[in-house]
Amino acid sequence: MRRLRIGIAGLGTVGGGVAKLLLSRGEELSARAGCVLELAAVSARDRSKRRGADLSRVAWHDDPVSLAHAGLDAVVELIGGEEGPARALVEAALKSGKSVVSANKALLATHGAKLAALAEANGAALKFEAAAAGGIPIVKALRESLIAYGIVAVRGILNGTCNYILTEMDKTGRAFEDVLKEAQAKGYAEADPTLDLGGGDTAHKLALLSSLAFGVAPDLAHMTVKGITEISAEDIGFARELGYRIKLLGVARATAQGIDQRVEPAMVKAGTPLADVEGAFNAVVADAGEAGPFFFEGRGAGEAPTASAVIADIVDIARGAAGPAFGRPAASLKPLSPPPPDSRRSAFYLRFKVFDVPGVLAEIAGTLAESGVSIESMIQRGRSPGEAVSIVMITHECAQTGLARALNAIARSDKVVSAPCMIPMEAG
Amino acid sequence: MRRLRIGIAGLGTVGGGVAKLLLSRGEELSARAGCVLELAAVSARDRSKRRGADLSRVAWHDDPVSLAHAGLDAVVELIGGEEGPARALVEAALKSGKSVVSANKALLATHGAKLAALAEANGAALKFEAAAAGGIPIVKALRESLIAYGIVAVRGILNGTCNYILTEMDKTGRAFEDVLKEAQAKGYAEADPTLDLGGGDTAHKLALLSSLAFGVAPDLAHMTVKGITEISAEDIGFARELGYRIKLLGVARATAQGIDQRVEPAMVKAGTPLADVEGAFNAVVADAGEAGPFFFEGRGAGEAPTASAVIADIVDIARGAAGPAFGRPAASLKPLSPPPPDSRRSAFYLRFKVFDVPGVLAEIAGTLAESGVSIESMIQRGRSPGEAVSIVMITHECAQTGLARALNAIARSDKVVSAPCMIPMEAG
Repeated sequence: MRRLRIGIAGLGTVGGGVAKLLLSRGEELSARAGCVLELAAVSARDRSKRRGADLSRVAWHDDPVSLAHAGLDAVVELIGGEEGPARALVEAALKSGKSVVSANKALLATHGAKLAALAEANGAALKFEAAAAGGIPIVKALRESLIAYGIVAVRGILNGTCNYILTEMDKTGRAFEDVLKEAQAKGYAEADPTLDLGGGDTAHKLALLSSLAFGVAPDLAHMTVKGITEISAEDIGFARELGYRIKLLGVARATAQGIDQRVEPAMVKAGTPLADVEGAFNAVVADAGEAGPFFFEGRGAGEAPTASAVIADIVDIARGAAGPAFGRPAASLKPLSPPPPDSRRSAFYLRFKVFDVPGVLAEIAGTLAESGVSIESMIQRGRSPGEAVSIVMITHECAQTGLARALNAIARSDKVVSAPCMIPMEAG
Repeated sequence: MRRLRIGIAGLGTVGGGVAKLLLSRGEELSARAGCVLELAAVSARDRSKRRGADLSRVAWHDDPVSLAHAGLDAVVELIGGEEGPARALVEAALKSGKSVVSANKALLATHGAKLAALAEANGAALKFEAAAAGGIPIVKALRESLIAYGIVAVRGILNGTCNYILTEMDKTGRAFEDVLKEAQAKGYAEADPTLDLGGGDTAHKLALLSSLAFGVAPDLAHMTVKGITEISAEDIGFARELGYRIKLLGVARATAQGIDQRVEPAMVKAGTPLADVEGAFNAVVADAGEAGPFFFEGRGAGEAPTASAVIADIVDIARGAAGPAFGRPAASLKPLSPPPPDSRRSAFYLRFKVFDVPGVLAEIAGTLAESGVSIESMIQRGRSPGEAVSIVMITHECAQTGLARALNAIARSDKVVSAPCMIPMEAG
């Protein structure tokens, strides 16, 4: 039988998991691959760390980049980071014709098109199932399965940390900071959670899904990115009362004016697939036009789901299923053409913190109406004359620019306590 | 660029859809395939029928089997039926080294292992994404993606007609026959719906998923199959009241004693992914052990979803991604070893139609207790002394054989009006 000599760079949770699988389930996986999968080399920072796998017969490399020239057939890059050794290793491996499996969304979202071209030029494969939505085989589904009618839109819950925090806030009514601290203590959130909570991690993954869906080069520049740090327990409570859940979504949509990419918290109707995704799970809706929407849900992070995706890529390579990284030749990936920035239309959830004084509602409603924003439903509860109260509205579909103008004007009113909160409504 | 010459046998809804896609989106699909996809030949019963595609430049074959020797590279079999011209064509094509794409679950569930061996022996591919769960890429996911940790269980809603009828019964409270007639009038059910309603269609699909998941030859012989024709509006109502939905599930599960395959109506807890699948949609939960459960949902039938799956297989073949039909070499597919028939344990929903006379509940509870069946919850509502009333129970997990013995004894009681109804509880 043929043999695929594999090197792994990065032996953290996922790398350790992949090594363990290759050593413990190598026979079964080799039978599926029609090719012996041999873990031949590894590289990590600390050689002495225990990893639950016997690596004594596997070549050790202090320098990960040296794996590119170690007589391997495929290199698994699990170092992370969009530059530095990860990029150096992937480039060097592809240049020398070695296939690469990477879980590195930052690297691929930033340099994906160039790396795909490099892979093609050197007859190597570049696979990254683990880089988006963890164990869910959404990369393969967009690249190989849902291609007949073209994709109209992709919407996903792509960051387990954010979804865990939003779910906990929803279930317990607790504040963001409070839930975040607990998530950090439990290991569900990083010590520095900026990339997760600010939406950057979701942005990386969305750029990859968008590229696969629409045949464009991954593009982080043309993307609106907003995280969950400003979501309040109060908004989550109002959402529930109105029959919605607040989710951090990555949405890429083909519009008549271009491809619209956004990462932002959105109101998703309860009972729809995405609204029901709880805890650290990930999920994606791929709207395949006439073939309809397809929904995928599963674990988006952690050792086993991520290692599962890496192994699938390795077996693909072992089977000889190369094919271009983003589903079509790198040279044919178009630059992303976004819609004009002021073209967005959506319905929105609005929350105003106002002094309960006569005329405040009339003033808000009047200002919104002047900007062409009409209201579908409203909650104003109880009375506390002179005190601060919340007014919540859901608008009909309107132009975001007009709404933003109205909200700026409203924020300047002396009847208004703080800047209004605005969250778009999104299909689930 | 390379060229893949394709023939389609069967130009019904799906075949017509595939032909239209190859003609109208050929350029885009060829770019993805890295290979020109050429619709070179077709065969169908009636040459004069309009199909929405211009087939004037495509060779016409009156005999579908002749496509095997028509200088093609791949044959798409959409004739249907486990024997006859479908089987003859697939065998002849594979024997002459042509790759085959088929949506024919009956053929593959019955002769799958032999056909897979024939494909391998002749260096041809055999692909069947459209044969299970329509547009959902579950065949590819089980064959190529969720392989690292092995599959523990597959559970699916695999027949859109049944799910449509059960959903309508649930929403409207109407009787089975009534909803069936409407479904037939609307085209959601066949004029002869036996294969759908009796569970046979689900059985074919489950045999394929089971084979992919567990590395066994597709096996219809070792499968319990029960359809939905005996499901009453009353049971659906009680299910809802107890927080469940009744779904026709195909379930294949690796147990310590063998692989258990069953098609039967089951009680699925509301709020779980499978319980929420409505109308003609299909869905599958693949439990990938340590990597967790993965959930897939989408359209399971109809022109576009099915044509989408067929096109994905064609593009796979065009890319050269052959690989064995069931994910591992046909010679290594094990015969399915089922658990002993009396080994099944489950919790069950029970409904008894009894005369409301003193002692009836004591008699039922006593008989169940004697067989080791204990009750988790019960509904007995109102009183109609001397009349027929329903008593509903959910049992704790128990041995099905013991329960069946008890139900037989209970059915013989003169306090009992009709044979008790028994529906297993299943994870969603």
